[in-house]
Amino acid sequence: MWSTNIPLVLPVSLTADTPSLHDNSADLDRLRRALKLLLPDARPLEIPFARIVPLCRRFRQSGFSGVALVNDLPDRWVLADFLAELPLTLLAMALDLGTTHLEATLVDLLSGRSLASAGRENSQIEYGADILSRIHQATQVRRQLQEIDASFLDPGLAVLQQSIIACINALTAELVADSGFKTNEIRAMSVSGNTTMIHFLLGLDPFHICREPYIPMANVIDPMESGELGLLLHAAAPLWIMPSVGSYFGGDLISGILASGLAESEQTRMLIDVGTNAEVVLGNRDWLIACAGAAGPALEGGVARMGMRAAPGAIEYVAIDPVTYALEVKTIDMVQARGLCGSGMIDLVAALYLARIIDVRGKFRDPEQESDPARAAFMKERLIRRNDQWAFIVVAAALAADGADVLLEQIDLDAMIRSKAAMYAVLTTLINQVGLDFIDLAEICVAGAFGIHINPQRAITLGMLPDLDLAVYRPIGNSSLQGAVLALLKRSARQQCLDIVSRITYLELNVNQEFMIRFSGALFIPHTDPSLFPSVPLFTE
Amino acid sequence: MWSTNIPLVLPVSLTADTPSLHDNSADLDRLRRALKLLLPDARPLEIPFARIVPLCRRFRQSGFSGVALVNDLPDRWVLADFLAELPLTLLAMALDLGTTHLEATLVDLLSGRSLASAGRENSQIEYGADILSRIHQATQVRRQLQEIDASFLDPGLAVLQQSIIACINALTAELVADSGFKTNEIRAMSVSGNTTMIHFLLGLDPFHICREPYIPMANVIDPMESGELGLLLHAAAPLWIMPSVGSYFGGDLISGILASGLAESEQTRMLIDVGTNAEVVLGNRDWLIACAGAAGPALEGGVARMGMRAAPGAIEYVAIDPVTYALEVKTIDMVQARGLCGSGMIDLVAALYLARIIDVRGKFRDPEQESDPARAAFMKERLIRRNDQWAFIVVAAALAADGADVLLEQIDLDAMIRSKAAMYAVLTTLINQVGLDFIDLAEICVAGAFGIHINPQRAITLGMLPDLDLAVYRPIGNSSLQGAVLALLKRSARQQCLDIVSRITYLELNVNQEFMIRFSGALFIPHTDPSLFPSVPLFTE
Repeated sequence: MWSTNIPLVLPVSLTADTPSLHDNSADLDRLRRALKLLLPDARPLEIPFARIVPLCRRFRQSGFSGVALVNDLPDRWVLADFLAELPLTLLAMALDLGTTHLEATLVDLLSGRSLASAGRENSQIEYGADILSRIHQATQVRRQLQEIDASFLDPGLAVLQQSIIACINALTAELVADSGFKTNEIRAMSVSGNTTMIHFLLGLDPFHICREPYIPMANVIDPMESGELGLLLHAAAPLWIMPSVGSYFGGDLISGILASGLAESEQTRMLIDVGTNAEVVLGNRDWLIACAGAAGPALEGGVARMGMRAAPGAIEYVAIDPVTYALEVKTIDMVQARGLCGSGMIDLVAALYLARIIDVRGKFRDPEQESDPARAAFMKERLIRRNDQWAFIVVAAALAADGADVLLEQIDLDAMIRSKAAMYAVLTTLINQVGLDFIDLAEICVAGAFGIHINPQRAITLGMLPDLDLAVYRPIGNSSLQGAVLALLKRSARQQCLDIVSRITYLELNVNQEFMIRFSGALFIPHTDPSLFPSVPLFTE
Repeated sequence: MWSTNIPLVLPVSLTADTPSLHDNSADLDRLRRALKLLLPDARPLEIPFARIVPLCRRFRQSGFSGVALVNDLPDRWVLADFLAELPLTLLAMALDLGTTHLEATLVDLLSGRSLASAGRENSQIEYGADILSRIHQATQVRRQLQEIDASFLDPGLAVLQQSIIACINALTAELVADSGFKTNEIRAMSVSGNTTMIHFLLGLDPFHICREPYIPMANVIDPMESGELGLLLHAAAPLWIMPSVGSYFGGDLISGILASGLAESEQTRMLIDVGTNAEVVLGNRDWLIACAGAAGPALEGGVARMGMRAAPGAIEYVAIDPVTYALEVKTIDMVQARGLCGSGMIDLVAALYLARIIDVRGKFRDPEQESDPARAAFMKERLIRRNDQWAFIVVAAALAADGADVLLEQIDLDAMIRSKAAMYAVLTTLINQVGLDFIDLAEICVAGAFGIHINPQRAITLGMLPDLDLAVYRPIGNSSLQGAVLALLKRSARQQCLDIVSRITYLELNVNQEFMIRFSGALFIPHTDPSLFPSVPLFTE
């Protein structure tokens, strides 16, 4: 039966009796009566006032026979449109609304197939690279006021909202451009994003998100019509917003849990999603626990001076031969290097450690003090002074895309060490919370570009990920987008999202003493307690 | 318990836990959670997207404690607003949306008391006195087109809609003007009107209402927000539209059935509502049957040249002494006469018949042929030639408000005879349909100004109402408005309206042969079969 596989917009073919003197019920009542008999369940059927006239006209012009499009909301049906016949495709759009990047897929709700994909930089970046500076921008007037009126609109928030809506509209137009469809043929959209991005999109106050006790305005939101936001979809297209759990635990991660299958798993698994934050979920079909920490900046690009996201020209692989000190560098699409993405950064720092160019604290060793001649030669060639500190030339200016050295500076290294320490501290705090050990995990799913590009062996070398059999690590790609697609296609997926939100336990790390202690202990490569990383060579000076 | 007495807007006092690091759910989720525990039943709770920001801000600024205002829709709750504390009054407005006149009452949902009342002429009259000419106006472009687009808006319909909304807004402003309230403090509105007026108000196509098989666009309509129509109420105020049964059986009559108690009565009763149409319902708690016919025009004013609605200066009572031929006339508020309202018209025609000034066909007798000297003198004094026919001077110019004779012309008399014949034919067709006789009726409720002012004895004399004990007739006043008030106050009343619509049988008279035969038989005073009216003197020439 339909019940668990109902798409967000369900087409219902119906043929009503035609009006006569003996059956003179009104057009709307006739349509409602015929439709109610055919809906898969008896939940209320809402017919929005603004839809009555176009619905009734199409129903009548189709000879009281055709296809009703019914939105499947969590607690009711909403009659959205009426077509003369079932179309060949019923378009919907899944959107991963990232802080730095948007990814979207155009889906056919009838076949479940993906028809097109596109991505685009988040246009809000011009108002701030990270979430906190955008919240600052969005609350610029609000912060001056003691109290605000219920109808107050912060101009900063309005600007950010308009920016992201324009960005989504451009992405939508791009998505349909080559396929011959029109944007208003898109009948539904699901949006998966972190809590703050969802607030910006919907124009909700983000003021308290970054202030203790970190309270969003809304986590679970009834689907609204796209027309209410000015999106370039069919005006009655429902927007399914992936529910969030808290300020630092967004719908993107709920999407990830959905896509990874974690919440239905018999064995205990872990999901790691490294975006701006490292967000981690641990659990199985019986329990779920999650936390998030600011582990990401050094890994995602944008913070390190030469950091960039995984795109053509990003160095994604680095190796240093431990004997010859030959440096091998690979970029995405094999073009000239422009910077370092997260996986490249991890490879590089791990290689620098294994080649003993940096020490256990992540500091460049002094080339002048180096006793090994080959290593000394390599260091003299590659290390230069920059801002009174050592910096490592990853790719020399002559070979780089921008005609300038691609450098790793000490400040980037320090950020990397803090990031990897935060990551490991998050993971250990979480596993410790439930009395388990990493060895108990059936699988560690690693989401995002990070998961695809990262070499777990190198992350283990740095002490970022636990020292487990490499087969335990599974890259799952853009699970935020995958979850959004599932939400379009299946009621069971949408229900599971709400179920996950209601049963997940969120561990707040901002005030967690254990986390702070574990973080300090992890500020070494691989760790202050090397017995945790038996596979990693230990270099004591 | 609440269940059956829930007003259209239910105030729910609540106090939620305040946010903390240990309870960091979002403002909206916190409010929803607290409210769901306190709602009288488990139906879905909708929180409209546009309300989220103001709701959450008020909730937070009230310290997470206060009063939620929840609209009680037929199949769900809708959270509309949040107040810091329970107000002293919770305003709602009941509106009787008549073709010629609007009547409104301001009600306090907390106490059930009426706070103010006001009335106003329907401003659409400038576009047509009757419904048909307004439908003509509203479909002026539509009629030129074979097919219309789903988004087509007929400019004529737009004008009529804007006119009635402006008229309602003026009435709303008048209603609160003296009470110290503001219009946006009105939290709900119920509207009771005929099917066409409701179509004009909501901008629904009236095109098919007057075309066989007489199909409205909608009879039962989900409540919408007042903001969607531009009404001067609180933007989230729900509009409860009294459901209708068909093109000629509107929500005003459903209101009347509700107010009269007909649908709950153990004994069989009849309800007569004379507006532009005569609408009649017969039934009890087990069955309901109804029909409507164009019986009203001569009775309501606007058609007869001197006709007017029951207002100051309207002649509401006429008597002619059968011996002295002294003519007695009373006007509403005892001011100078301006015209004749329905009850005055009935009194006058009955008196003219009893005084033998008109014959059984409703024609003025020729004063020249009159043999009785007193009657001849009276006729010579009162009858003048007008348009080649006799006309009766009810009030001479010198005594009339406008300085012109208040006349009853033959054409008015003819319309009156047709109206009374239609009324009686409607009543007999209906009672015959269920195999009953008038004598079986426990009560005949007569609604509207007509019911208050009419003298049933005179209506019986004309053969308009059946010749029954006068105690059977009960005037019930503006039952359309009374029903609208009940719908504001009680869920049971709103449920009953929907129940009435679903179980009523509507007898279509436009194609009813029996009705046409009965109509012809009733074109005499009192009837071609005088045995039906034993109490009425019969004058055979």
